[in-house]
Amino acid sequence: MASLGPSIDELISALRCLPGVGPKSAQRMTFHLLERNREGGAHLAKALMDALDNVQHCRRCRILCESDICIRCQDERRQQDQLCIVEMPSDVLAIEQATHYKGQYFVLSGHLSPLDGIGPEALGIPRLIEWLDEKTILEVILATNPTVEGEATAHYISELARERQIKVTRLAHGIPLGGELEFIDSGTLSHAFSGRESI
Amino acid sequence: MASLGPSIDELISALRCLPGVGPKSAQRMTFHLLERNREGGAHLAKALMDALDNVQHCRRCRILCESDICIRCQDERRQQDQLCIVEMPSDVLAIEQATHYKGQYFVLSGHLSPLDGIGPEALGIPRLIEWLDEKTILEVILATNPTVEGEATAHYISELARERQIKVTRLAHGIPLGGELEFIDSGTLSHAFSGRESI
Ligand SMILES: [Zn+2]
Ligand SMILES: [Zn+2]
Repeated sequence: MASLGPSIDELISALRCLPGVGPKSAQRMTFHLLERNREGGAHLAKALMDALDNVQHCRRCRILCESDICIRCQDERRQQDQLCIVEMPSDVLAIEQATHYKGQYFVLSGHLSPLDGIGPEALGIPRLIEWLDEKTILEVILATNPTVEGEATAHYISELARERQIKVTRLAHGIPLGGELEFIDSGTLSHAFSGRESI
Repeated sequence: MASLGPSIDELISALRCLPGVGPKSAQRMTFHLLERNREGGAHLAKALMDALDNVQHCRRCRILCESDICIRCQDERRQQDQLCIVEMPSDVLAIEQATHYKGQYFVLSGHLSPLDGIGPEALGIPRLIEWLDEKTILEVILATNPTVEGEATAHYISELARERQIKVTRLAHGIPLGGELEFIDSGTLSHAFSGRESI
């Protein structure tokens, strides 16, 4: 592709670091920012630098936060003996919004994926083991995603907990509320059928 | 939605200035940058600031460029009497790659869109009129997009050229090469049919 200039090329290529942004949308974004929204572009550059400067991982639960220890880990009114394990910071937000859970969290920031070189170290498992060894946790709640990688990660962590005689639970699988049977994938349907409950 | 911290919220909101990025993808992008690709994020912030500093519009043809007058406008070997009018800088690149055109360009940076407050001023029409009044242009080639807005913009400019006795052409419409008839939209097919050529 012909070039309009080095800074323009560099911006097109830099935008590719965003997930889901290919060469065509990177070019469209670049032209949009430079032609139509320079103020938005300057604001984005500043917000990026601020976030990179200020945001780190909570030393205790590994969630993204802007202090050493996050607000939930600092909250002594939360239950100290339940530990809910999630893949992403957004999962914490979703659980906080949807449930009355008031225990602890641990954020893996991903799932085991040997092909991508993501092993236990990258997910903070050594830190998790330290926590489990403190003997404060009575229940580990696995809330990884219901994908192959999420399940494998959950299985790996459940072994760590069982070795330490800690109770392990995981989120129930089944038909989503409001879901219509004919549109549910067959794996979920079969799981929900075999796990049917008395009413 | 619960918050992880002000800098994180600010970055999620700043990413919304990118076209096609809604709240969900802005959040996904933010977590991706902060969790997985801080180097990419820092590079993006720098590339944005550099581009905003260095990139302006060519004083002559209004294309995005990094000097006062772009490389094509400086090139005296290009024909001076043909002026191809496009909506976007990327259209110039596409025409340069696909054709042997060696004339001048004028970049509107959009199309007339009264509802969005985009009128002739915003498209640089006063500058275009100056150029047409120099009497150096013998042919105006309209290469706006074949959309309602693009056609309206082309019509508006064709009037300006005709008033000055300048020849006006537009890109031929028809079946795209390699296109299969049954998948061509009916407007294009009808246009191609009525504009059929002797062979
Ligand atoms: Zn924490
Ligand atoms: Zn130029």
